[in-house]
Amino acid sequence: MGSMMFNKVITKPLLSSLFILAALTTATPVTSFAQTAESGAETPRNMILVIGDGMGFPYLSAYRYFKDGRGMTDRADIEQTIFDQYLVGAASTYPADETLVTDSAAGATTLASGVKTYNGAIGVDPNREPVKSMMAYANERDMLTAAIATVQVTHATPAAFFTHSESRRLENDIADQFASLDDNGNWRFDLLLGGGEDFFVRPASDEHDAVDHLEHFRNNGMRVVTSFEELATQQRLPLIGLFAGRNLPNVIDDQTRLKNMTEQSLRLLNNADKPYVLMIEASMIDWCGHGNDIGCAMHEMAELDELLEFLIPYVEEQGDTALVVTADHSTGGLTLGADGAYQFRAAEVRRQGRALRSMATDLNDMPWIDWEGYIETHLPYPLSTDQQQAIVDVAEYQADDRRNKINDVLRDILNYHTRAGWTTSGHTGEDVPVIAAGPWADRFRGSQDHTDIANQFIEWIKAH
Amino acid sequence: MGSMMFNKVITKPLLSSLFILAALTTATPVTSFAQTAESGAETPRNMILVIGDGMGFPYLSAYRYFKDGRGMTDRADIEQTIFDQYLVGAASTYPADETLVTDSAAGATTLASGVKTYNGAIGVDPNREPVKSMMAYANERDMLTAAIATVQVTHATPAAFFTHSESRRLENDIADQFASLDDNGNWRFDLLLGGGEDFFVRPASDEHDAVDHLEHFRNNGMRVVTSFEELATQQRLPLIGLFAGRNLPNVIDDQTRLKNMTEQSLRLLNNADKPYVLMIEASMIDWCGHGNDIGCAMHEMAELDELLEFLIPYVEEQGDTALVVTADHSTGGLTLGADGAYQFRAAEVRRQGRALRSMATDLNDMPWIDWEGYIETHLPYPLSTDQQQAIVDVAEYQADDRRNKINDVLRDILNYHTRAGWTTSGHTGEDVPVIAAGPWADRFRGSQDHTDIANQFIEWIKAH
Ligand SMILES: [Zn+2]
Ligand SMILES: [Zn+2]
Repeated sequence: MGSMMFNKVITKPLLSSLFILAALTTATPVTSFAQTAESGAETPRNMILVIGDGMGFPYLSAYRYFKDGRGMTDRADIEQTIFDQYLVGAASTYPADETLVTDSAAGATTLASGVKTYNGAIGVDPNREPVKSMMAYANERDMLTAAIATVQVTHATPAAFFTHSESRRLENDIADQFASLDDNGNWRFDLLLGGGEDFFVRPASDEHDAVDHLEHFRNNGMRVVTSFEELATQQRLPLIGLFAGRNLPNVIDDQTRLKNMTEQSLRLLNNADKPYVLMIEASMIDWCGHGNDIGCAMHEMAELDELLEFLIPYVEEQGDTALVVTADHSTGGLTLGADGAYQFRAAEVRRQGRALRSMATDLNDMPWIDWEGYIETHLPYPLSTDQQQAIVDVAEYQADDRRNKINDVLRDILNYHTRAGWTTSGHTGEDVPVIAAGPWADRFRGSQDHTDIANQFIEWIKAH
Repeated sequence: MGSMMFNKVITKPLLSSLFILAALTTATPVTSFAQTAESGAETPRNMILVIGDGMGFPYLSAYRYFKDGRGMTDRADIEQTIFDQYLVGAASTYPADETLVTDSAAGATTLASGVKTYNGAIGVDPNREPVKSMMAYANERDMLTAAIATVQVTHATPAAFFTHSESRRLENDIADQFASLDDNGNWRFDLLLGGGEDFFVRPASDEHDAVDHLEHFRNNGMRVVTSFEELATQQRLPLIGLFAGRNLPNVIDDQTRLKNMTEQSLRLLNNADKPYVLMIEASMIDWCGHGNDIGCAMHEMAELDELLEFLIPYVEEQGDTALVVTADHSTGGLTLGADGAYQFRAAEVRRQGRALRSMATDLNDMPWIDWEGYIETHLPYPLSTDQQQAIVDVAEYQADDRRNKINDVLRDILNYHTRAGWTTSGHTGEDVPVIAAGPWADRFRGSQDHTDIANQFIEWIKAH
């Protein structure tokens, strides 16, 4: 449950991470650091790009206060988070079309290839021609390519690093591409972790035969795992791990998993003893943002915090690995404060126990649930008479969109009591944070565009 | 008018600024740069702090697109602004009270003194005890102290650099303090430019005698000017210039003035041949934000852009002056995109010709105005039937709050057509940009708190 997870996250995992790190690096050839030092460190051996999907600047500010948990009477100073400690700049995100506001498909295509494109495009340019991603460049140079996501791997962000499609909606086609060899006869990836089994294993329909790409993978030398336990026992690449039919659950409803997937990935990549390019997406910050669900978003941020508290010391210890963390765009138009109130009630956000859409689903699907007790447990705020009446009204409401109506009522209660502000159910076009660690962090200082980040990675890969 | 001003602003004033600069610096002792170089540049001779009141990150992103003016079919790359070119980091802004969202009084007190306080406080700490501002430190060290604002100088931001009050509302008291000597028998400022004559010259009332601080100033060696023409002829400090009863007009309705006031200030400060601390406030970005008026805000940003296009080359040429530009908070909860639309229509923002509240005032106060023609001139958007009906309804509306009702209708039209999103009529608590130029710019890299900026300035001043 959310509250248990949260207690785990706010204990600083730094020291324990360093021990794990020591264990990890025993498998790594000790020559890698020396090699970089010899070459004047012009090009990192390994590159890691972390994308917080939807993680605009307001998410970093909100998370600092959420983590600190300042109560109504506590005037103590507020600690910086690891996001703050390694912030180096900002990036503009506008797509090639006229909107100035990008979606995750255009955003990821740009971050993967350095080419701006239209919203909805996966690895293709405005003329719908395929663009070459950093993963394709890395593949050609015998570097290992890897990606981790917390939604299905066929979703916009991971898809744009490995595949090409006129539309992000064609997730079956994207799965087919993941399962096919590239022009050079190689797998398109060495390591791919996330959700999405439903797109790789599809039953027969009137129009199509059944598809089982996992069987195809197994028959052609690709390891396939579907649980974290299995993943922990693996020793060799290439490997695909699909841990859910579609997306993994929200952290607030379940547990963190990015740090574990990343530790396992680094173990496997280092075992393979080749330079690597790794993309890690904290995918579901965006989904919580779309739902205007502040507690949901903050627990996803806590997962990314937990990852970076491990990953940044690891990268700094290695000395041969570049790490950049950014967002593809901001989501929901989040602001701290709303409706004239000069307040953001971070302490109230911590009291939320479950994602809004999970609550709406529970209340809609299970008529025997005690509404009062359920809401008191997961949204423990003193409700106004109007808010109580809205709950009664929606409980009695009967129509197809009842779940959405319930969600709306819960969302309004949450935002009233936390003073999280939102302008949209979609994305917004403000610049996003750029965080960097390791010896090349200075390259990303100040204001830049997403194309600059991608082009720097590709320049480094080309030098391999 | 707004459109004329705007044409002036988008022409790059860089080259012409350098010529003006050359003229300015002939009056400056050429020893200043050498002195700094000799001292190892540990401490800047002069310090300039520019505060964009309300200028959160979204204002920088929005202004980039507003200035670029991308149309609906133009896919050309978008140029960085000078804000982008000199962005070095971000700052947290939370006050000492429990809200996490600061007002301009607490924000300015913190930026002036390094002490966090409660919202509404002018130069006092949470216990209502006076705090020592950078201007007081500078005064003690025989450095010149100067401030420029585009609202009344008794308003929160300039007030907190020179005076102390339990409440920002006590603007008459604040004017009285500006007109009184400090504990050492000195004027509290050497140069003060902005609006606010109404607070310095007050008629008799039942409770109070008439006050004429300007007369008092004149009789005690302080120069007093009330027009930009007069200001241009002045040769000596101390000087106060009050160019409006209260605030100066919005740029969109009138013209820019910050660059002119700053040029004149630097001429006078350099003539006086002492090190100086100068605070410049672009005050009315915040006011436009409170009105959720995107065009108004963008023209105020254009004024600050024009200032920085002059001031940053000046500071870089001088080599002995530290310049930091930041905001006290973000206002209005601005986002680029709203209501589910993945769009920010920057080209439409450029078509707005007048501030919303000026339009509401005009339409409310002048019954003979041709509403249709007036709105077509200043908000030239294709109106929906509903929008046309809302205008008709509000034109016929008769009550005390008619002006506010008109304002609401115009605001909804503007935001619908531009897709500017807003969450509040107040402030929000996200981190704000930090921009810096000159040899000490690196000191402000990455994430910091407002107290860090103030404490750096005070440390430098103490070393004088
Ligand atoms: Zn999204
Ligand atoms: Zn304000």
